Amino acid sequence: MDKQTFARYRDIYRAELFEYVVPFWLKHSLDTEQGGYFTLLERDGTVFDTDKYAWLQGREIWMLSKLCSQYGVRREWLDAAKLGVDFMRAHGRAENGDFYFAMDRAGNPLTQPYNIFSDCFMCTALAEYGKVSGDEKALEEALAIYRRIQVRKDNPKGVWTKAVPGARNLCAMAMPMIQMMMARELRGLVPQEELGPIIEENLGIFFHRHVDRKLECVFERVLPDGGHLFDVMEGRLLNPGHALENLWFIMDIAHEMGRQDMVEDVADIMLWPAKRGWDEQYGGLYYYQDYMGYPTDKLESQMKLWWVHAEAINAFLLAYKLTGRKEHWEWFLRLHEYSFTHFSDHAYGEWYGYLDRQGNPVFGLKGGKWKGFFHLPRTLMVCEQWLAEMAEKA
Amino acid sequence: MDKQTFARYRDIYRAELFEYVVPFWLKHSLDTEQGGYFTLLERDGTVFDTDKYAWLQGREIWMLSKLCSQYGVRREWLDAAKLGVDFMRAHGRAENGDFYFAMDRAGNPLTQPYNIFSDCFMCTALAEYGKVSGDEKALEEALAIYRRIQVRKDNPKGVWTKAVPGARNLCAMAMPMIQMMMARELRGLVPQEELGPIIEENLGIFFHRHVDRKLECVFERVLPDGGHLFDVMEGRLLNPGHALENLWFIMDIAHEMGRQDMVEDVADIMLWPAKRGWDEQYGGLYYYQDYMGYPTDKLESQMKLWWVHAEAINAFLLAYKLTGRKEHWEWFLRLHEYSFTHFSDHAYGEWYGYLDRQGNPVFGLKGGKWKGFFHLPRTLMVCEQWLAEMAEKA
Repeated sequence: MDKQTFARYRDIYRAELFEYVVPFWLKHSLDTEQGGYFTLLERDGTVFDTDKYAWLQGREIWMLSKLCSQYGVRREWLDAAKLGVDFMRAHGRAENGDFYFAMDRAGNPLTQPYNIFSDCFMCTALAEYGKVSGDEKALEEALAIYRRIQVRKDNPKGVWTKAVPGARNLCAMAMPMIQMMMARELRGLVPQEELGPIIEENLGIFFHRHVDRKLECVFERVLPDGGHLFDVMEGRLLNPGHALENLWFIMDIAHEMGRQDMVEDVADIMLWPAKRGWDEQYGGLYYYQDYMGYPTDKLESQMKLWWVHAEAINAFLLAYKLTGRKEHWEWFLRLHEYSFTHFSDHAYGEWYGYLDRQGNPVFGLKGGKWKGFFHLPRTLMVCEQWLAEMAEKA
Repeated sequence: MDKQTFARYRDIYRAELFEYVVPFWLKHSLDTEQGGYFTLLERDGTVFDTDKYAWLQGREIWMLSKLCSQYGVRREWLDAAKLGVDFMRAHGRAENGDFYFAMDRAGNPLTQPYNIFSDCFMCTALAEYGKVSGDEKALEEALAIYRRIQVRKDNPKGVWTKAVPGARNLCAMAMPMIQMMMARELRGLVPQEELGPIIEENLGIFFHRHVDRKLECVFERVLPDGGHLFDVMEGRLLNPGHALENLWFIMDIAHEMGRQDMVEDVADIMLWPAKRGWDEQYGGLYYYQDYMGYPTDKLESQMKLWWVHAEAINAFLLAYKLTGRKEHWEWFLRLHEYSFTHFSDHAYGEWYGYLDRQGNPVFGLKGGKWKGFFHLPRTLMVCEQWLAEMAEKA
């Protein structure tokens, strides 16, 4: 590809980020009366639910802080980040320091800290906020949360665990994946001698358990030895978006480590979920699939989700950037085309979150219980940065 | 309507039950090697997951026993019921007597007894089985489980409760509804002086909390005083199928009690969820709705589910039988037409479970984690019985 092509795409991602996405959240999401963020937003930004979820509070703090660290501190971004930090410091933590899953608008806790990902997102949020705000305490908090996560990680739901102890043990990809996410974000804050072994351990878990080279498939849940439980749905579950998100985290870390062999390997692997997950009839990537083609236990399996496509775009653009393979550029173009045609809503800003299989929005919502200021702006940011580098070098 | 019309519909329901539904489950569902039932069945009956869920084991025992009590004991039905009873007696209960939520094929427990509905379905299962098998112990077990449910009902999830104690308290319709279901089934087993007050209490909860006459709406989750929390999705959630299922339980009980005023009242009320829930564009009833028309937190909200339609058919046929109102007969016809056109699969038997909004099956499955031998055969059975009575009296 030539310089002009990269520059043209770079302009698209940059404009989408700064004209259609960031303004939408700054305008509709900030709860200037009671603190924190509204994240349940209709097509036009109308708040349709005032509850506050720790995942989404943490992710929005992180993203706002990230904009400051990547594009220079702007008062409105930093103030908005502080709005979330103050709210979560005042209301977000249970007595033992773990983060509640949900609070009401005023910050009264609703749901116990059964979900360790709340802590993971708040950890990276405080790390990034500390970096750009000069708030040293935030860095200390982030480090303490990170270390507490490493203690809790093998029993993350604690007393709220519904699995019977000693029952069959399927290992889910979510934990090693969030470890890679945190590892990328906490470079420089967590000492390398502490972070290095965690990265190595989680690379091992991913490549030895979840990647099956014989079957050419990335599995969500596997036996501890990497074997499969194919008699039951949960052993056959595939989640193309999850696999691709994890793959680009790993590719980025491999590149940082100078491991071009691993970069090339990951570029091979990412073709499996993309090819298997693509809907040949209507376009777009499925949300869930069954390895053997049976039904999954998720009614929404055939729907097309914004984050799946955002993460897939990241994976293929990064792979092209680091390997130059034409096939990966073509996947990037296919995903880009589908996403900007179906998800993007320039009338009101932001992307639709949930399309039916045919590609029509099921709801108009721009923010929900699981959709906040995170996947999409992160994609737009990293892609515009990568494309800028690619344009410069071409 | 005339005798011939009732008799014609009666034949349809009877044939569907005995030619297309009961044989499907007897052929594909029985695990004659390890006991209990397979319930995760593909379009043609292929078992695609061997795990065993207490809800579905209990429901299948109940339905098989009910066939015996309603149509006379047949060896194959009673043997099949015993297969489930033996399995659940051997494997189903935790040390404290509560039922595990899920087991593997061999009966090893997978999921803790966090879900009291497992116990509710096993209670009615053992009550019906005891009645038709002469197994006195089953009746004792059912009664003991029933009494234990009455103790657990205000804290049904026990240690697995994720809600923060003292947090805002929305009352869900599921518990009063399952109480009505059990009350209908346990007449004769639970002493009337014990059952009567429970029925009265739960009728009160339903009419005073969940029915809003001013807004003409049945709400899933309300404040203890019947007020609403409209700032958040959960306070606005509507579930037409749930409302209609509960309404026919209540109508049946009201009829038993000789309360024709309540029967007429319920006939009025059931028009609200039906009218609001009907998809004018594609037909069928939505799964979930938001009272204010905002998105719900359920991605599958617009899908058309078999059980919603089965329960709606029951509600309107019973209402017509007990009130003679033409509007209710027309609703019965509309629901019948939609269901037999879209869900029924005479090629392989049983009904599809999950259609997209447009009415196409999303999966081919006939049995799943939440779809067993229960809603559909119960509908076919009660409707063929009601239609037979109607034909006789016409």
